Amino acid sequence: MKNAIGREIPGETKGQGKLRPFLGAFQGAPETFPRLPPKKRSPPGGNKVFSSLGDLFGDLELKSGATVSFHHHLRDGDAVANMVLAAADKFGLRDLNVSLTGTFAVHAPMIELVKKGVVASLRTSSLYGPVAGAVSRGVFPTPVLIHTHGGRPRAMKNGELSVDVAFVAAPAADRRGNIVGHLGKSACGSLGYAWSDADHAGTVVAVTDNLVPFPLFPPSIPQNKVDRVVAVESLGDPRGIVSGTTRITKDPVALKIAASAAEVISASGLLKEGFSFQTGAGGASLAAARYVAQMMEKDKIRGGFALGGITAHMVGMLERGLFQCLYDVQSFDLESVRSLGRNQNHLEIGADLYANPHSSGCLVDDLDAVILGATEIDLDFNVNVVTGSDGVIMGAAGGHPDTAAGAKLTIVVANLLRSRQPIVVDRVITATTPGETVDVLVTERGVAVNPKNQELKERLVKARLDVKEIDELKSLAEKIAGAPEKVDRDGPVVALVEYRDGTIIDVVRGVSG
Amino acid sequence: MKNAIGREIPGETKGQGKLRPFLGAFQGAPETFPRLPPKKRSPPGGNKVFSSLGDLFGDLELKSGATVSFHHHLRDGDAVANMVLAAADKFGLRDLNVSLTGTFAVHAPMIELVKKGVVASLRTSSLYGPVAGAVSRGVFPTPVLIHTHGGRPRAMKNGELSVDVAFVAAPAADRRGNIVGHLGKSACGSLGYAWSDADHAGTVVAVTDNLVPFPLFPPSIPQNKVDRVVAVESLGDPRGIVSGTTRITKDPVALKIAASAAEVISASGLLKEGFSFQTGAGGASLAAARYVAQMMEKDKIRGGFALGGITAHMVGMLERGLFQCLYDVQSFDLESVRSLGRNQNHLEIGADLYANPHSSGCLVDDLDAVILGATEIDLDFNVNVVTGSDGVIMGAAGGHPDTAAGAKLTIVVANLLRSRQPIVVDRVITATTPGETVDVLVTERGVAVNPKNQELKERLVKARLDVKEIDELKSLAEKIAGAPEKVDRDGPVVALVEYRDGTIIDVVRGVSG
Repeated sequence: MKNAIGREIPGETKGQGKLRPFLGAFQGAPETFPRLPPKKRSPPGGNKVFSSLGDLFGDLELKSGATVSFHHHLRDGDAVANMVLAAADKFGLRDLNVSLTGTFAVHAPMIELVKKGVVASLRTSSLYGPVAGAVSRGVFPTPVLIHTHGGRPRAMKNGELSVDVAFVAAPAADRRGNIVGHLGKSACGSLGYAWSDADHAGTVVAVTDNLVPFPLFPPSIPQNKVDRVVAVESLGDPRGIVSGTTRITKDPVALKIAASAAEVISASGLLKEGFSFQTGAGGASLAAARYVAQMMEKDKIRGGFALGGITAHMVGMLERGLFQCLYDVQSFDLESVRSLGRNQNHLEIGADLYANPHSSGCLVDDLDAVILGATEIDLDFNVNVVTGSDGVIMGAAGGHPDTAAGAKLTIVVANLLRSRQPIVVDRVITATTPGETVDVLVTERGVAVNPKNQELKERLVKARLDVKEIDELKSLAEKIAGAPEKVDRDGPVVALVEYRDGTIIDVVRGVSG
Repeated sequence: MKNAIGREIPGETKGQGKLRPFLGAFQGAPETFPRLPPKKRSPPGGNKVFSSLGDLFGDLELKSGATVSFHHHLRDGDAVANMVLAAADKFGLRDLNVSLTGTFAVHAPMIELVKKGVVASLRTSSLYGPVAGAVSRGVFPTPVLIHTHGGRPRAMKNGELSVDVAFVAAPAADRRGNIVGHLGKSACGSLGYAWSDADHAGTVVAVTDNLVPFPLFPPSIPQNKVDRVVAVESLGDPRGIVSGTTRITKDPVALKIAASAAEVISASGLLKEGFSFQTGAGGASLAAARYVAQMMEKDKIRGGFALGGITAHMVGMLERGLFQCLYDVQSFDLESVRSLGRNQNHLEIGADLYANPHSSGCLVDDLDAVILGATEIDLDFNVNVVTGSDGVIMGAAGGHPDTAAGAKLTIVVANLLRSRQPIVVDRVITATTPGETVDVLVTERGVAVNPKNQELKERLVKARLDVKEIDELKSLAEKIAGAPEKVDRDGPVVALVEYRDGTIIDVVRGVSG
C-alpha cells in the first residue's frame, strides 16, 4: 500500500509483522500494547556486582530469542555491545533481537554474529560503517528497523518494544547500581538514550570500568532501576567516545551556507527573548550557531534553552548567558562532558523528554529553530538522511524527524551538490523526514521555502535573502552535475524507516555487491 | 485465614477483592498485572494550561467510578484534594476511588463526600483527624487500604493500582508542565510521593498557584509526564504545609530515651565511615539524631547519607559534612525546603527509589540505622503505628514498615506508657510492622533486644546499656498502669493494613460511637 507521501509500504515483513503506513507527521494515533510489568525485587543486603561477563551470564536468565539493548553514547569507541554479544555467543545464545540506539564502524563484529545466527534482528537510529553496508547487502535475516530518537522511547513505553535485558554502559557506577556518564576514563556525558531502557527493560545491567564508592550522586540512572553491575576492564576507546574538540568549518561554501541559515533565523522573527535552538555537530551547523550567537550578543537576547546533542559551542553559549539551560541527551565532546558534571544549568535528559511524540510533551516541540542536514531533499521537501542517493545505507534518522516535526522553524542546510550529485531531486530515494515538517532549504546558491510557509517566504524576501523556488535549485544543480541516474528500487526490503509515531515512512531496498 | 504473624485475614473484601495474607517480611513474591499503557500525545503548540478547575473538568475525560490520586506533601495545609473532589462533586461525578498518599485533619470534607457517594474508596498511608475517626466508625462503604510509602509505588508499577487522573500539587509550574516543589508561597519541598503518579497515571494534572516562565528547571517532574496545568488561587495554608521549625524536645524522659537510642547505635558497631541514617521528626527522634551528630563529630565520622522525611536537623548535619548527601522524599520544614532548592547534595527522590521492595533496589535497604515510633509493641516485637491501643485509627504506616525492613538496625523508641496505657503488650491490636524487622525497643526504663539479634544484645550488654527482656518491660509498665483492658475486635473490617509487598498484615475493625 502507498503511505501519505506516496511510498509503497509492504503490509507486513518478517520480524516486524504488520506495518502501519505513515499517515502524516501529526496523524498517527498512539497505539498501546498490553504488557506485564517485569517482576523485580530488592532484598536488603543482596549483591548486584559481578566481576566478569562470564559470571553475569551464568546468573542472568537470558535465553535464545530474547531482546537485548544497548545505547550509543560511546559512539565509535563502544566496546560494550561487542563484548556482550561475544559473551552471548560463547554462552550459546542464538536469535537475539538487538536494540542498539546507534550503530558505528566499531560494531562491525556484529556482521559475523548475524551470519552465525547469534543476532537475528536489529533496531537502531543510525547505521554507519560496515554494518550499514551489510544491511544494504541483505545480510540480516529480517529488515532492520531504523527508528528516531523519539520513536524508541515511544515504542518502549507503549509496550511495542519489550527489552529482556538492557546493557547500559556506565562510565561510573557504585555497587548499588547508581550510575553517571560524566566521570571516569570512558566518560561520555549524558546517558539519556538509556533512560527508557532503565525504566522498562526486564533486567537492567550496568557495565562499568569504574566502580566508585557508594553513594554515587546525583545519579543519571538510580539504583532502583539497575538490577546488576558488571565490572569490565574497559568500556571502549576514549578516542572514539568523544572527539577532543568540535571544530567550526573553514570551508568558504559551508560558511556561506551557515551565514544564510543564521540570517533565515534572524528574518523569521523567532530570534528574541527565550529563543530555543538545536543544531548538529557538523561544521556548517556549528558555524551557523556561531553566527546566531553573535546576533544574540549584539541584540542582547537571552535565549531559553539549547537542546539535543550538545557541543562545546553550546556550552560556551550557556556560559556566556545566551541560554538559560542546556538539555543534553547526548554529549558530543569533552567540554560538554565536563560541563554536564559541573554546571547545574546543563541538564541531562532522557530520550522520552527529548523527543517522544506520544509523551505528555517533549522538548523538541518547544524548539524555535533547528538546523539539520540532508543527503537528499526533494521537491516536496521530503528529506533523506538514511541512504546516499545511490540507495546505500550510510546515515542516521536520529533526532532529524523529531526536531523537524517539533521546531517552529526547520532549516535544512546542504551544499547544492553532494558527492557530485544534486542534493535536490524529484523524489528522495529514501524518505526519512516528511516535507510537511521542513520549512526551508539553505544552499550556497539560494534558499527555498516550503510553500506551506508563505509567511516565512515573505519575511525572507523582505530581508533580502536569495529566495528561490526549490525546483530552481534543482535545475541549478543539474546544470552543473547533470540529472541524477535513476536508481533501481526493486531489491528486497532490507530496512524499514519508522517514523517517530511508529508508522512506516519508507523502506530501504537491498543493493547487490 | 491466619497470616504469618497469626492475624485473621478475610479471604476477600468489598472493593479490594481477594486478599493475600502476609507471609513474612521478605517472603511475598512480586505479583504483576497486565496493563495497557496510557495513550498520550503531544502535538507541538498544544495548550496545557487551564485557568480554573471548572475549565479543566470540562476537558478531562473523567468518569464516575474512576480512580483519582493526590499526594500529601502539603500535609495539613493541603487544599488541593478538597477543591478537586468538590469540583468532581459539582460535575456530578460519583463513586470515585481516591488514592491520597496521606490524610490529615484538613481533609475532613471528604467525609461528607463519602456519605454523598462521591468518594467510594480510599487508599492512604496515614489517617489523622476526622477522616481517621470516620473510617473507624465505618463511614466508608469499603475498607480503606492503608499502604506503606514503598508499597504504593510497587502497586502502581506492577499494575495493581491504576490511576486515571493524578492531581499533583505544584508549588511552581511552567506552562509546559515542568514543576518543582521548593518555590512559591505554597512551597513544600520534595514532591517525591507524586513521582510514581507522574510515571503511571493515565492523565497527570499539575495544580498550581504559581505559574512561572518556561523553562522551569531542573524539574522535580518534567513536562513529558504532565498532561495539564491548572491555575488556582491557592494550594493551601502555608502554616499547615510546613512547620516553621522542628524543635528538639526538652522533656527529660524523651531526652533519656533519645540518649539511649544513640548509645544503641554507637554500641551496634554501625556508627562508622559511610554511616546512613533515618529518623522521624518527633521530639525524641530529633534529640537522638542530635546525640548521634555529636558522636560523629567527636569521632570524626563522615556518614554516607540521611534519608526520608528531611528536617532542618538533617540539613544541618549535611552542611557540617556529617553526611555526603540527603535523599529527600518529603521535606518537613522550611529549612529543608530551602536546602532542597539550593544544595546540590540535597537530592529529591521518588517513593520508588525510597522504599519500593519490588524495585531493583531501594534506599531503605542501604540504611544502617533507623529510629521509629510506636503506639504499641508486643512480645514478638510487632509494632502498631496505625491505631491507638483502643483500636481507633489515628496514625500512619508511612515508611515505618519499609525502613524497619531495610535498615540493618531498627530502633523503636517509646515511653513505657502512652496515654496511661502500657506500650508493651502481649499482642498489638493492629500489627503494622512485623517483629522480625525490629531489632530493639528503647524506653526510659531500659532497652529490649529482639531475640533474633543475639549479637546486638551482647554488644549492648557489653556497652553497659540497661538491657532487659521485653516481657520485663511489659511487667514494669503493668505495675504502673495495670494490665490493659481487652479490646473487642469483633466489628466489621473498616481498614486493611497492607504490608509493603502487597500482602495483608492486619485488618482494623470498626468501633461504635
